[in-house]
Amino acid sequence: MSGHGRKKKIPVVVMGATGSVGQRFVSLLAGHPWFEVIALTASERSAGRPYREAVDWMQSSPIPRAVTEAPLLPTDPGSARGAALAFSAVDSAAAGPVEEAFARAGLVVVSNSKNHRMDPHVPLLVPEVNPDHLELTRHQEFGGGAILTNPNCSTIGLVMALRPLEERFGLEAVSVVTLQALSGAGVPGVSGMRAVDNVIPFIGEEEEKMERETLKILGRLAGDRIEPHGVRVSAQCNRVAVIDGHTECVSVKLRREASAEELRAAWTVFEGEPQRLGLPSAPTPPIRYLDAPDAPQPRLHRDLGGGMVASVGRLRPCDVLDWKFVTLSHNTVRGAAGGAILVAEFAVEKGLLG
Amino acid sequence: MSGHGRKKKIPVVVMGATGSVGQRFVSLLAGHPWFEVIALTASERSAGRPYREAVDWMQSSPIPRAVTEAPLLPTDPGSARGAALAFSAVDSAAAGPVEEAFARAGLVVVSNSKNHRMDPHVPLLVPEVNPDHLELTRHQEFGGGAILTNPNCSTIGLVMALRPLEERFGLEAVSVVTLQALSGAGVPGVSGMRAVDNVIPFIGEEEEKMERETLKILGRLAGDRIEPHGVRVSAQCNRVAVIDGHTECVSVKLRREASAEELRAAWTVFEGEPQRLGLPSAPTPPIRYLDAPDAPQPRLHRDLGGGMVASVGRLRPCDVLDWKFVTLSHNTVRGAAGGAILVAEFAVEKGLLG
Amino acid sequence: MSGHGRKKKIPVVVMGATGSVGQRFVSLLAGHPWFEVIALTASERSAGRPYREAVDWMQSSPIPRAVTEAPLLPTDPGSARGAALAFSAVDSAAAGPVEEAFARAGLVVVSNSKNHRMDPHVPLLVPEVNPDHLELTRHQEFGGGAILTNPNCSTIGLVMALRPLEERFGLEAVSVVTLQALSGAGVPGVSGMRAVDNVIPFIGEEEEKMERETLKILGRLAGDRIEPHGVRVSAQCNRVAVIDGHTECVSVKLRREASAEELRAAWTVFEGEPQRLGLPSAPTPPIRYLDAPDAPQPRLHRDLGGGMVASVGRLRPCDVLDWKFVTLSHNTVRGAAGGAILVAEFAVEKGLLG
Amino acid sequence: MSGHGRKKKIPVVVMGATGSVGQRFVSLLAGHPWFEVIALTASERSAGRPYREAVDWMQSSPIPRAVTEAPLLPTDPGSARGAALAFSAVDSAAAGPVEEAFARAGLVVVSNSKNHRMDPHVPLLVPEVNPDHLELTRHQEFGGGAILTNPNCSTIGLVMALRPLEERFGLEAVSVVTLQALSGAGVPGVSGMRAVDNVIPFIGEEEEKMERETLKILGRLAGDRIEPHGVRVSAQCNRVAVIDGHTECVSVKLRREASAEELRAAWTVFEGEPQRLGLPSAPTPPIRYLDAPDAPQPRLHRDLGGGMVASVGRLRPCDVLDWKFVTLSHNTVRGAAGGAILVAEFAVEKGLLG
Repeated sequence: MSGHGRKKKIPVVVMGATGSVGQRFVSLLAGHPWFEVIALTASERSAGRPYREAVDWMQSSPIPRAVTEAPLLPTDPGSARGAALAFSAVDSAAAGPVEEAFARAGLVVVSNSKNHRMDPHVPLLVPEVNPDHLELTRHQEFGGGAILTNPNCSTIGLVMALRPLEERFGLEAVSVVTLQALSGAGVPGVSGMRAVDNVIPFIGEEEEKMERETLKILGRLAGDRIEPHGVRVSAQCNRVAVIDGHTECVSVKLRREASAEELRAAWTVFEGEPQRLGLPSAPTPPIRYLDAPDAPQPRLHRDLGGGMVASVGRLRPCDVLDWKFVTLSHNTVRGAAGGAILVAEFAVEKGLLG
Repeated sequence: MSGHGRKKKIPVVVMGATGSVGQRFVSLLAGHPWFEVIALTASERSAGRPYREAVDWMQSSPIPRAVTEAPLLPTDPGSARGAALAFSAVDSAAAGPVEEAFARAGLVVVSNSKNHRMDPHVPLLVPEVNPDHLELTRHQEFGGGAILTNPNCSTIGLVMALRPLEERFGLEAVSVVTLQALSGAGVPGVSGMRAVDNVIPFIGEEEEKMERETLKILGRLAGDRIEPHGVRVSAQCNRVAVIDGHTECVSVKLRREASAEELRAAWTVFEGEPQRLGLPSAPTPPIRYLDAPDAPQPRLHRDLGGGMVASVGRLRPCDVLDWKFVTLSHNTVRGAAGGAILVAEFAVEKGLLG
Repeated sequence: MSGHGRKKKIPVVVMGATGSVGQRFVSLLAGHPWFEVIALTASERSAGRPYREAVDWMQSSPIPRAVTEAPLLPTDPGSARGAALAFSAVDSAAAGPVEEAFARAGLVVVSNSKNHRMDPHVPLLVPEVNPDHLELTRHQEFGGGAILTNPNCSTIGLVMALRPLEERFGLEAVSVVTLQALSGAGVPGVSGMRAVDNVIPFIGEEEEKMERETLKILGRLAGDRIEPHGVRVSAQCNRVAVIDGHTECVSVKLRREASAEELRAAWTVFEGEPQRLGLPSAPTPPIRYLDAPDAPQPRLHRDLGGGMVASVGRLRPCDVLDWKFVTLSHNTVRGAAGGAILVAEFAVEKGLLG
Repeated sequence: MSGHGRKKKIPVVVMGATGSVGQRFVSLLAGHPWFEVIALTASERSAGRPYREAVDWMQSSPIPRAVTEAPLLPTDPGSARGAALAFSAVDSAAAGPVEEAFARAGLVVVSNSKNHRMDPHVPLLVPEVNPDHLELTRHQEFGGGAILTNPNCSTIGLVMALRPLEERFGLEAVSVVTLQALSGAGVPGVSGMRAVDNVIPFIGEEEEKMERETLKILGRLAGDRIEPHGVRVSAQCNRVAVIDGHTECVSVKLRREASAEELRAAWTVFEGEPQRLGLPSAPTPPIRYLDAPDAPQPRLHRDLGGGMVASVGRLRPCDVLDWKFVTLSHNTVRGAAGGAILVAEFAVEKGLLG
């Protein structure tokens, strides 16, 4: 039965529900048409306390009523009894083994942590970009369970903007400089003293992640593994005093010549599997090209499509590569919890939950 | 007689003294060992009013006592009687003809406005980078006067960081993405509503200026003109919520192979004419390579060398071009008033004031 | 027929639709169950241009589709043909006479401008606080039309928090210090250079407005006029680097002794006419007392109740007056467009549109 | 011998040199005419490492050359061999006993920590405000050593502004609302996610400290103890997105009537012991009344007098108490390290070092 037709909601657990990504999962899942949160987990320290008490809530909408008093459970498979799906916002220091344990317990784990992203049999999934990579899960050996991952928050906007260009014109080289939001570092994350009147031109491991993940996501499914794409990617990552929304200045060298009109058209008409399937969290269209000379801007455009759209603007020729443009996406919605929920919807629709 | 030996201070006029660059001129010239401000000019509207009253002072040090009550004069050569040197912070809407009028009246005009920067006989001067371009003034036809210009605030940091690389390794291509401070837009400039929790990925004409000016500054003096450098330059400019200090993420392709050590050494040992001449505003050294993994940062490093240093950090290989790094310079000191004062010191030392 | 029962939407015009309050009117009226925007007006300069082109859109949701291409009309009654209700966001330099002209043309004008707020027959209305003041309109002489006003954005949060205390305990003195958002100054408003890393301890006329308006709103309807309340009010107003949401630190001296529990209860059980009438924009409850030790905070709590709630927190004894607490309200929703829409809903429900 | 006449510098140790106040001590003591840093201490964890390596340097001037490579010592009296004076920036979790140990070892400890501020025999000193309280040290029993304390950063600006009023007109009540800088919370301190686009209307214990310390500082020396002043004080404390500089909105009730001119004069002519003694860090004058309608502002006025001035502005009548005004002082200079250095200079000049 397809996701659309289902009558009963799928019971889900949020792993690591108190951190900032965990909070976004909790917010976005409130009222979700397919999923129902039945358990929240946290570190040992918080286990047993009501969610309201243990969480340092940082979202601008209040804690959803249904979970305000929910007792936090320890992050182990016993806490997931009755759940079919787990969203993981567990800190990467701990995520590796617990996500595997949940998968072995038969759950489909959709993780926002970096730990399993580069595992050969784990798909790093942006359903508009590389839906066929879902096939990799066949080669996982967790019994009925599985692990799916969501890319790094700075990678997602980039690959969404690149995918239509790659399809139509081919990609030889990509140079990207990011201006990333504070929420990407969680809480406490970046000190206020570092954030105000400042730029931090460094985010630990971020450049490596962007470069590596882009090659996997744009890569080709070859049996039980992904052949990384051959494009050369170079990333420079900066933290700026923005709450939400990663802005990325991109230059690309294409395999074949194309006009500005062709590039804009590639973005504008682009549609992915989630749009064709009408998944609940799929934005329509997934990419918005904005004509204003100074767009996109995080405060004005991060919330397009409920925070699920990648917006693109300022296309112009580049004297070093071929073209340059700016792309923006909401790092804690599309780039984290929202993106993972879309992955889960896609997996459900494709029958992964059996 | 050299600047160093002079007994009497050179009388100077600040043209356009009420705007934000004008304020920086006034601040930096207070207590200058060679120059003494004898007149301040402003638009018709403010003429006649005491400086204190007409200016919306935005500097963190108070208005220098000597000029607090100075009456603002109209911006025409009659106001410069007795002055030998004029610093121009006149708005570009008006700067073109009035700077020429001051030069024809016999003054050496050092301008921070864009109007004459690309004139064939006007040097676009960063004394550490292209001191020989001063020669161009011989071909100007203003009688005893002359016009010298200071580059755009975003260009200066870039060419300072590039010069040592160009000298030693040659430059084929430069890709730069800027994160520019609000002070570069003056006051009112960018609205607070646009600045807070936001990035504006567009600054009018800025990318064109950076690309064009870099070629002229790095160009070769060929008789009465400059042959632009052949390097390909591509700039993307962003405004961020920083008060002072432009951060620039740079990727370069060199003409010959070089190691990270060689690049760092090129910056570290670099010295220019201003340093050799011991000019009062010359920072020693002019370029600082910072080893910290997250440097340079505007709030921490913009004031190095009194705001006259270009700091560089994060050198690492680039998968698209050859190398990438971050450079930072103080946009209203080195990138505007301070840079122009250094140009004037250099011109004085070289005998341009006769 | 009551508002609830109506079948056809009431046609409305937004006067001064391009400014920041105008933009909020346009946003909030999109999809309003009772009102339908049939015309947008602006200054002469913009008249004739499509809204999309003339507006410098600063909202985080996109321009509502229905008005994107709407041609801007001049702000005169001819532009309001077919409309029964006008929302005015006209700049105070112009609002006085045009609002009267619209009223004389038979429209009920709900204004966010300061011009008519203190007119003896014009109600300054916060429907939860002084609903009976609507009666004043009977004494207006505009034929079928009328003028209603919305208080200053900093006054609204204050009077909402004070009303329950006034009712139950009486008020002798109120001392309030505000930390106001940038959006209250509109665009361009406060320069980014003034906003970042700074506080501006002055907002023109704001303290006077808060003091004066509070007395009128809390005042007693006496025939055809309002007797101002006798409470002593002292306001100090500051601008801080917040996008939306005015935070106010309040101390009060009550007429009769009360415990912390009684004060908290007064806020918690408070309900106004809009709640009893179930008006579409009425938040339920209108006041939220937050127990967290560091609440309310603008980024976390301004959007409670869709931005229509006044949140209160940190109640504690005051050694100078009796009690102190913090209140927060969304200055461009409850404090401007949203508040005015609630006034209109209330007026409609009370039959003012005939 | 008086401080002025001394030939040899006094050797000092900075206790807790790596934190943000410790960094300010190190910065401000570089080049001090009387004091020379001979040792830096830190927690066990950092002991042994060179300062440069162990510190997360956040100041805008670089680490002073003299201490860059200085090895950090453990914070115990053995590390102070050869020193006569100790500046303590030790965290309050540890400061209590170690400051006593240093005093018992014969050092004069000037502490910025809260631990001993309210001890009956420990002066809480602002040398312009309560110089006679230094006498309390006679009643301490540390042998040759002593403990002096510096008030909380938010208290200092307040008492400086209040002192001239208290002297001339008497004080009955003071109501103060603060807008405090992030640096007051140290690093990491407030998360960037909390700081940007936000106000935090709560600072732990801060209101209590301001209220309590003000009474002690303004109190009367009575033999071996201080009789607290009888003024009623009520404080409300907020954190805002400012790097340095606490802004305070103050209302006062005076014992006798006074005109605005009298109040302004009281501030303008005010001079304290440090000014009369010509202490190196004493600003002249200590209080600056600013006439601009929107002054003082942190970014523009925090650095007056090298950050040692309390600026005052916006004096106007208050409808609840008598007068209201705004005061501003640099929280990490006057309000911490700079204030403590002035205390030390004063103590030296008064012969406390024997």
